[in-house]
Amino acid sequence: MNNTSPTPLDAIDSSVQSAAATAVFWAESGPSLRAALLRGLADALDAARDELVAIADRESALGPARLNGEVARTSFQLRGFAAEVEAGVPYARVDDAAIAGAPPQGRPHLVRMLEPLGVVAMFSASNFPFAFSVLGGDTAAALAAGCPVVVKAHPGHPQLSLAVWELAQRVLERQKLPAGLISLVPNADREGGSYLVRHPDVAAVAFTGSYQGGMALQKLAAERPRPIPFYGELGSINPVVALPAKLRTEGAALAATLAGSITLGCGQFCTSPGVIVLIDDPASDAFVAALAEAFKPMPTHAMLSPAIRQGFDNGAAKLAAHAAVKPVFAPAADGAGPAPRLFEVTAEAFIADAHLREEVFGPLALVVRAADVGEAVRVLEAVGGTLTVTLWGLEQDSDDARHLLRAARRVAGRVLFAGVPTGVAVTHAQQHGGPWPSSTQPQSTSVGYAAMQRFLRPVALQDAPRWALETENGQSH
Amino acid sequence: MNNTSPTPLDAIDSSVQSAAATAVFWAESGPSLRAALLRGLADALDAARDELVAIADRESALGPARLNGEVARTSFQLRGFAAEVEAGVPYARVDDAAIAGAPPQGRPHLVRMLEPLGVVAMFSASNFPFAFSVLGGDTAAALAAGCPVVVKAHPGHPQLSLAVWELAQRVLERQKLPAGLISLVPNADREGGSYLVRHPDVAAVAFTGSYQGGMALQKLAAERPRPIPFYGELGSINPVVALPAKLRTEGAALAATLAGSITLGCGQFCTSPGVIVLIDDPASDAFVAALAEAFKPMPTHAMLSPAIRQGFDNGAAKLAAHAAVKPVFAPAADGAGPAPRLFEVTAEAFIADAHLREEVFGPLALVVRAADVGEAVRVLEAVGGTLTVTLWGLEQDSDDARHLLRAARRVAGRVLFAGVPTGVAVTHAQQHGGPWPSSTQPQSTSVGYAAMQRFLRPVALQDAPRWALETENGQSH
Repeated sequence: MNNTSPTPLDAIDSSVQSAAATAVFWAESGPSLRAALLRGLADALDAARDELVAIADRESALGPARLNGEVARTSFQLRGFAAEVEAGVPYARVDDAAIAGAPPQGRPHLVRMLEPLGVVAMFSASNFPFAFSVLGGDTAAALAAGCPVVVKAHPGHPQLSLAVWELAQRVLERQKLPAGLISLVPNADREGGSYLVRHPDVAAVAFTGSYQGGMALQKLAAERPRPIPFYGELGSINPVVALPAKLRTEGAALAATLAGSITLGCGQFCTSPGVIVLIDDPASDAFVAALAEAFKPMPTHAMLSPAIRQGFDNGAAKLAAHAAVKPVFAPAADGAGPAPRLFEVTAEAFIADAHLREEVFGPLALVVRAADVGEAVRVLEAVGGTLTVTLWGLEQDSDDARHLLRAARRVAGRVLFAGVPTGVAVTHAQQHGGPWPSSTQPQSTSVGYAAMQRFLRPVALQDAPRWALETENGQSH
Repeated sequence: MNNTSPTPLDAIDSSVQSAAATAVFWAESGPSLRAALLRGLADALDAARDELVAIADRESALGPARLNGEVARTSFQLRGFAAEVEAGVPYARVDDAAIAGAPPQGRPHLVRMLEPLGVVAMFSASNFPFAFSVLGGDTAAALAAGCPVVVKAHPGHPQLSLAVWELAQRVLERQKLPAGLISLVPNADREGGSYLVRHPDVAAVAFTGSYQGGMALQKLAAERPRPIPFYGELGSINPVVALPAKLRTEGAALAATLAGSITLGCGQFCTSPGVIVLIDDPASDAFVAALAEAFKPMPTHAMLSPAIRQGFDNGAAKLAAHAAVKPVFAPAADGAGPAPRLFEVTAEAFIADAHLREEVFGPLALVVRAADVGEAVRVLEAVGGTLTVTLWGLEQDSDDARHLLRAARRVAGRVLFAGVPTGVAVTHAQQHGGPWPSSTQPQSTSVGYAAMQRFLRPVALQDAPRWALETENGQSH
């Protein structure tokens, strides 16, 4: 593979067509076949972990500790979806018996079942070379749902993408499954990405990446002769609201925890806390001071790519130049990566200027100073849409606590009452997706087992003969 | 109310704001309050049926028999959603206990619950003055979900819309609920409709209507500073595939049934069968002849509005002038409404020209002649997206039957094996929404109890204190 020349459009076409050729077979496949594939992929990933982590570290600089953990998460996720398939989730039915008589009480026999959408085009993320890439959550969810996948490799880790894809191909071959089930577009440029989204054989798009890129692709998906679902995760500022009473007793520990979360992986997480909302109080002042102290010893960390580094530097410079924004401390000199930055602004200014609510991807947070809880609520309302809101100090029921929770629920997909938003558990209850722009489809999640539902749509069979119901129960294949 | 002057924008603004003022109260309301409102509305509709049907008949010309049935369906639906709320559907939770230890196995306590989206702007349909209008399915589903509704009245039945809204206001008043829960925009023109979709306090749009209108509004929803979900039902041609063996034994009866379905309500149903796919065979020829005969005695019926009549005449004229299309019979003279039309085309021509696959709203169908089942499958594949596909003659399992069912499932939301697609039962298993353009969100339904899910999105609470979980269980209000 030549990393510098983009994958030609006819090669993308071949990838999509080889995926499309498997769509009917896979849509009609039973749970044992799907579960065996998902577990086979998980086992193969675990077995190749050392060599894959070495490639990933060379390409992403994320370090072996983080990357080993990410492989474990990725194989755990593949096995989790296997269990979902075996539990019958993609074969679920609602069966309403016929009722004799005139409508509205009378009705025919209706069985609602789930139909896989077809080929899913999956745009890998830069910041999770395993968990949101070739065999990551979107691929696991799509395969579990009965959909083949065409993976657009992320240019940040091309060798790893190819190695993981080749590993997947070996698993498919061993299991005598068609190679096209997991197809790869190794090196698409912007034209190639657009071509993929507009391809008539692509039925849905899953995207994790930048706001600009996501918005452009979503527009293409909507403007196709036949529009298709576009699941995009485009950005999130993840406010943390910390009440003074909490900071008075636990401020020092929380400052260390929060500094760790903001700088984790050089801030390159969609759930990185970007806004810290504090109520005017000496405990809040002390917390900001403790936060600044906590940042000082943090080692810097190379960012994923020069483009991401450039984006961070631009975002930090814009904040530094903003009339209403002041730096909390003079940042240390940049090392391998950028030194963390902490800025401060009034709630009033934050609410007034939408630019202050834009995500800066990297180790940076903006402290927003509110006069009281009412103003903190208005800060949350101004956020619009975010993957997470964290609320510290809401252990006891009160009017203030209820107002904050209500505002948080209105804008977020996940509301935390303890800990930090980085780290997203793969469970049934997980919700990773909130109002726009954190997700283009706030009713869907891209992490957790409900993510499978993105690639299924209901079909009701009316007065179906027995054979049509028997052959589609997922057990008879 | 002056029907000729459009509702001014500041009046629309007032309607939205009065709805928005109720959003938190209603989102936090418990099941008894919501169920009582839905049942109160149903009872009030039933009690006022005679007078409302008289108004509706004057405005729509749909006739008392149909309109009485539609009131019964509408109140049945309101009561059905009341039962859903009492069963806890909008308060459903997924609770994953914490697991100690490091991720990916270790995890925090997560509770996934459903959050009402907020104010729903509902665009009424012309062809169901009760069931898809002020107190129709969208309103019932939104109120059940915990969302206030702003109804844009359809210009085809302005007096009825006002009368039903006033009835709803009396119910709200009796139950001491805020008037804004069900707000009305009585006479919005295109500018008013656009204003409503772009209003910052509107959180979702439900639309049933024309392809052109729906596409324009969807674009506005996507281009808002904060895009919102748009649920549009834009058009459907509802193919009926009839196999020769079936027609040999039951052709005469099926021809009468199908002619009745095509002309029911002057063809003004979203599920009206618009395409009849037949396999070359003497039984198919006899069926077409019987269908033509069945049309002859049908009384004509005034259409809902002059614009809809004009649209029908244009659509019929375009087909008549199409080089590949021939009329099956010379239509009778138009009476109160248009005489039914039946045209015929080869499968090859149908597949080649997308214009032949456009919906003509009214009593018209296009017979598509296929050489064999394989070609009939390709006809279905060419359809793209449709609310329904009906398959006659699939009682026995066979390769042909499986190919047809597979193709039908790929393009439709509902697949029928008997009867006709007009008439949509309100049940749990119902699916009224298929791939584009039959729905802009093929994973949602606008009929049946799953319709409520359109107006809810998941929120996960992580490590929530007891009070935050107790007060949101829908029981404590």
